[in-house]
Amino acid sequence: MFNSFGNILRVSTFGESHGVAIGGVIDGFPAGVTIDFDAVQKELDRRKPGQSKIVTQRKEPDTVEFLSGIFDGKSTGMPIGFVIKNTNQKSKDYNHNTNVYRPSHADYTYDKKYGIRDYRGGGRTSARETANWVVAGALAKQLLAHISINAFTSSVGDIFIDKPYQDLDFSKTESNIVRCPDEKSAELMIDKIKEIRKAGDTIGGTITCVAQNVPVGLGEPIFHKLHAELGKAMLSINAVKGFEFGSGFCGAKMQGSEHNDIFNPDGTTQSNLSGGIQGGISNGMDIYFRVAFKPVATIMQNQQTINSEGEATEIQGKGRHDPCVVPRAVPVVEALTALVLADFYLMDKTRKI
Amino acid sequence: MFNSFGNILRVSTFGESHGVAIGGVIDGFPAGVTIDFDAVQKELDRRKPGQSKIVTQRKEPDTVEFLSGIFDGKSTGMPIGFVIKNTNQKSKDYNHNTNVYRPSHADYTYDKKYGIRDYRGGGRTSARETANWVVAGALAKQLLAHISINAFTSSVGDIFIDKPYQDLDFSKTESNIVRCPDEKSAELMIDKIKEIRKAGDTIGGTITCVAQNVPVGLGEPIFHKLHAELGKAMLSINAVKGFEFGSGFCGAKMQGSEHNDIFNPDGTTQSNLSGGIQGGISNGMDIYFRVAFKPVATIMQNQQTINSEGEATEIQGKGRHDPCVVPRAVPVVEALTALVLADFYLMDKTRKI
Amino acid sequence: MFNSFGNILRVSTFGESHGVAIGGVIDGFPAGVTIDFDAVQKELDRRKPGQSKIVTQRKEPDTVEFLSGIFDGKSTGMPIGFVIKNTNQKSKDYNHNTNVYRPSHADYTYDKKYGIRDYRGGGRTSARETANWVVAGALAKQLLAHISINAFTSSVGDIFIDKPYQDLDFSKTESNIVRCPDEKSAELMIDKIKEIRKAGDTIGGTITCVAQNVPVGLGEPIFHKLHAELGKAMLSINAVKGFEFGSGFCGAKMQGSEHNDIFNPDGTTQSNLSGGIQGGISNGMDIYFRVAFKPVATIMQNQQTINSEGEATEIQGKGRHDPCVVPRAVPVVEALTALVLADFYLMDKTRKI
Amino acid sequence: MFNSFGNILRVSTFGESHGVAIGGVIDGFPAGVTIDFDAVQKELDRRKPGQSKIVTQRKEPDTVEFLSGIFDGKSTGMPIGFVIKNTNQKSKDYNHNTNVYRPSHADYTYDKKYGIRDYRGGGRTSARETANWVVAGALAKQLLAHISINAFTSSVGDIFIDKPYQDLDFSKTESNIVRCPDEKSAELMIDKIKEIRKAGDTIGGTITCVAQNVPVGLGEPIFHKLHAELGKAMLSINAVKGFEFGSGFCGAKMQGSEHNDIFNPDGTTQSNLSGGIQGGISNGMDIYFRVAFKPVATIMQNQQTINSEGEATEIQGKGRHDPCVVPRAVPVVEALTALVLADFYLMDKTRKI
Repeated sequence: MFNSFGNILRVSTFGESHGVAIGGVIDGFPAGVTIDFDAVQKELDRRKPGQSKIVTQRKEPDTVEFLSGIFDGKSTGMPIGFVIKNTNQKSKDYNHNTNVYRPSHADYTYDKKYGIRDYRGGGRTSARETANWVVAGALAKQLLAHISINAFTSSVGDIFIDKPYQDLDFSKTESNIVRCPDEKSAELMIDKIKEIRKAGDTIGGTITCVAQNVPVGLGEPIFHKLHAELGKAMLSINAVKGFEFGSGFCGAKMQGSEHNDIFNPDGTTQSNLSGGIQGGISNGMDIYFRVAFKPVATIMQNQQTINSEGEATEIQGKGRHDPCVVPRAVPVVEALTALVLADFYLMDKTRKI
Repeated sequence: MFNSFGNILRVSTFGESHGVAIGGVIDGFPAGVTIDFDAVQKELDRRKPGQSKIVTQRKEPDTVEFLSGIFDGKSTGMPIGFVIKNTNQKSKDYNHNTNVYRPSHADYTYDKKYGIRDYRGGGRTSARETANWVVAGALAKQLLAHISINAFTSSVGDIFIDKPYQDLDFSKTESNIVRCPDEKSAELMIDKIKEIRKAGDTIGGTITCVAQNVPVGLGEPIFHKLHAELGKAMLSINAVKGFEFGSGFCGAKMQGSEHNDIFNPDGTTQSNLSGGIQGGISNGMDIYFRVAFKPVATIMQNQQTINSEGEATEIQGKGRHDPCVVPRAVPVVEALTALVLADFYLMDKTRKI
Repeated sequence: MFNSFGNILRVSTFGESHGVAIGGVIDGFPAGVTIDFDAVQKELDRRKPGQSKIVTQRKEPDTVEFLSGIFDGKSTGMPIGFVIKNTNQKSKDYNHNTNVYRPSHADYTYDKKYGIRDYRGGGRTSARETANWVVAGALAKQLLAHISINAFTSSVGDIFIDKPYQDLDFSKTESNIVRCPDEKSAELMIDKIKEIRKAGDTIGGTITCVAQNVPVGLGEPIFHKLHAELGKAMLSINAVKGFEFGSGFCGAKMQGSEHNDIFNPDGTTQSNLSGGIQGGISNGMDIYFRVAFKPVATIMQNQQTINSEGEATEIQGKGRHDPCVVPRAVPVVEALTALVLADFYLMDKTRKI
Repeated sequence: MFNSFGNILRVSTFGESHGVAIGGVIDGFPAGVTIDFDAVQKELDRRKPGQSKIVTQRKEPDTVEFLSGIFDGKSTGMPIGFVIKNTNQKSKDYNHNTNVYRPSHADYTYDKKYGIRDYRGGGRTSARETANWVVAGALAKQLLAHISINAFTSSVGDIFIDKPYQDLDFSKTESNIVRCPDEKSAELMIDKIKEIRKAGDTIGGTITCVAQNVPVGLGEPIFHKLHAELGKAMLSINAVKGFEFGSGFCGAKMQGSEHNDIFNPDGTTQSNLSGGIQGGISNGMDIYFRVAFKPVATIMQNQQTINSEGEATEIQGKGRHDPCVVPRAVPVVEALTALVLADFYLMDKTRKI
């Protein structure tokens, strides 16, 4: 219940940042899918630390090992177990934090809730967990070969791409280290992150994701609306503070006469403020949404805080952290999107005779 | 799976707008809670149509009838079944829509997905379903008697309350028909809705919700984070396009050094950009979030559209519709918030020995 | 979680014996199934009290009212809500039991667990709940029109049918009031029940169920084996003490060389000690199993017992009770079998690409 | 959904007999339980192959490696990931079975259902999976330190213990290799198995399990009755054909006046034909049940069968197999019992205020 995601395609994960390994079980993956292992590893490499100058300099290979559920290169319908070993933990970076509550981290809430926590590297609260999701999402992408899912960095701090996504060339997303398909904005973003990093600070940003060629009919009213599950998935990512799809918060300022998407004879719509979803069900148009990430809480500056005794103390981030989480979160957003869509794709097979 | 909400406290609902009745089963409600039936009905009355001049003029009493699970005025731990009869359906208002796809409604997607739909009054897609949620939420509120949950209209179109929620007096929310505790803003909003209505148009808005006195420790990592479940719940409400909590989308523009919430010795924090949730778990501070509603899709103007044969046709909204959904959605937001919190409250009882 | 059954096709029920009504929500029922309402009522009539001289003489029409999810005579894919009103409660029959714990009933355990219970007619523990299952099962049968499910009384006390099921004519099951397709045994059983009833006593029995034309491939390892779900379903019926399928407990005395089912070239097997299920998955052969029912706990004789204060007292069953639960449980066994098979039928659609 | 067991305490497993490893994720295990690793390994050793002369002579250490969720020797409330590496696969033992369907195995049904299967050592259908359950069950036992759970071999073929369980000394169960606490019966059973083995045959048997000191109140009506979940759990074990609790199938021959358990003033009962469960809820008396295992399907004799082309062929079991599964299944029965009880123990914490 607590560490599982999905309904028919269900991923159950485990693992702490500095434990032996992270990993999980992917259950409900249908039989007969040819598995491209390189494609999985490639997605992991997009997420891994140390990949560029604007992310954490921690080096971890993040190699996934599949333990079951695949035979002769194909999925067998049996659960797919996998592990990613933790190889480069420097727990001593965290020794000073044993009983200190880092501001805007989850140390305090975990301690109060569970009475015990693995404080090394943030333990279970570390974004390292998202590597598990990338593995599962990479398999989901292979199940949904016909659907294309493209996420990208749409803002860093107050630097925004000033174009609609339709004017972007997604093939350029991977051509720069901030994962912004608009090259001019990408440069500005990279400069901004470098500057922030030098100041020992961190900065927030947003990711936009576009899913194309999604068939009509994915999504299940009333309590499994497609956008509600996408929202839940995105809000599960560390540091996320908001989610909007289609017209989003802007739509809340609009009038019905300008917001409604008028149909073409073939069922497509002239505009797409609905964001590809109507009544919780995909309508065949592009699904697009935006996810807000707060600045990483670990900064390289002194901060006042308390320890588990309630005593005032001071903390300064050590170790190797991301000045901006957004570039590495792009594959995570895609992975969760793929998982949600794959789950609904399977569910939809049961909904009419 | 499809029409159920919650884990331990689980609500399963049914019903179409113009069917015999709507209703549901509330399972997992603990034994021993004294039930205040008037309080339930009062919440329903806040949501019901016809309550003021700025909402739909359809009249329905929305009387809930409890069928089980309550004995001698107390919950017995058994499932609580309930129905709300549909009394004022005017299906003929919809006869002209039998096979016409209303723009930005779910007619098209339901038809494509299920191959059949109850088109009367929007059938299952009608916001009438939210009455079920208000019933369940009203009971959840009684379970969480120590927690206070206050939602209110924070914007209509481009009219926003220009104060932080801390400066508002929630006891004034019900003192005006738009449910905005800031009286000056309320007047402007009401005028705006009246003007929009006269034009046969509709308008969007936002609702802010604040939950106070929430105990530390509600929320379950990794895939049951408190804010993720709140987000999913809000995104399940008809017309919702976005959700943000704490600093939200603004947080994505900030730096860590300004965003971090510094602890006081007692574990409270000096600021609360976290929105009362850290690592997916409540930290005892106020939980607050904002929900974006698009303008209602049914407008009293002519619109081009298509029918199920793909032929071009024209449609004009008839019947009695809301020019702005936000005032009636305020109790719905509160109800779902209560359901989420109650579910986590029960779950938390199992998480340590 | 507590009062729901099934995974994709999920039934959530409510209701106490002497409350306003019982009923439920059938979620996940696929769109497009033509609903035969008479067939549903006919199944209810097979279960209803007062139908013959060997069952309780309580008279209740048990009329089901569908509230949603069906339109123009077809399922719409939306949840099917239904209620069965309680019309003939004689709560005063139970007034003397307010705080007395009936032996081998659930009064004591409910009181201890929940701290409160609706004691009227057994409240939620009454077998009246099984009427809900019959409704849902009758719809499941319509979804599985190609599968035939036949349950029958295979023993009452020590009177057993002395033939294998293959020698029985299931069309005769409804031709006698004990629902035993072997007429000679039926007469003996009926006489036995009459005799037991006269003595103010009750008696146990078994029901055998045979499902034929089940397609190969229903069932999901590892924790959703077809026979495990059937077993759980049967063990959910009031008074059930045991379940066995295929060779059952006899198989535990056998040797592999005599127990193995040898294949025919077409994949059928020469014998069927497996009971139509291998590795948790249907193999296309007949599925058959046997369910043991204890004697009804309410007897018309004086019994020593205690009350909620722990004081010794005496009790004598009043009211109108079944001397043997088996004849009325036959449609219940069929209903749950249909629900399990329908759930697996839908699940199977998602298991390979 | 498919490979998960439990509700609050949920185990999700993976692994094939001859894959890299088997393992799983134990989610919902509460924080603060001191983990005795030796006790876990000791349970695994009770199940492992090669432990005595009457079980398979395959040698595998079955060493469990915990990967997460435990810190400083205590559970943290986070998911507990674990793996057991496969070290002694001799896949060549199975090469001759690549496309041959072994009688009364799951080869045929898996092939038909999934279109692909890992045939090595039975793949996912191997009872090797039960090692995963033993790990999880061993942890559950530590959570339920106050409850004692004792399973034992109660019959092999037609050799039965001729005493009620109350006359047995459970401390003697581990004193002989067939795990029967009655020494005289144990000897007969061991001889029987040796004789069967010499003949290249296999034999069935039964296991009885007794849970003592179970608190009143575990179990959840209507669809989560304690005995129904126990039954489902037991029916999930490879080779199980039947389950009965309390009076079981014998109860179906009895009359109410002899079957009812009369209360003592303290709420205990004079007899215990109910098997410690009334209305699906534990009543504080001993819970006891019996599980029937068919003879292992793999025999060392020639059998006619077919291959995946439907061609007649012959098969003779090779490799190292159990002549009787029962001795090694005793810890498996205990493990699943512990898991079910632990899940209900946690659930019960949420059921009244």
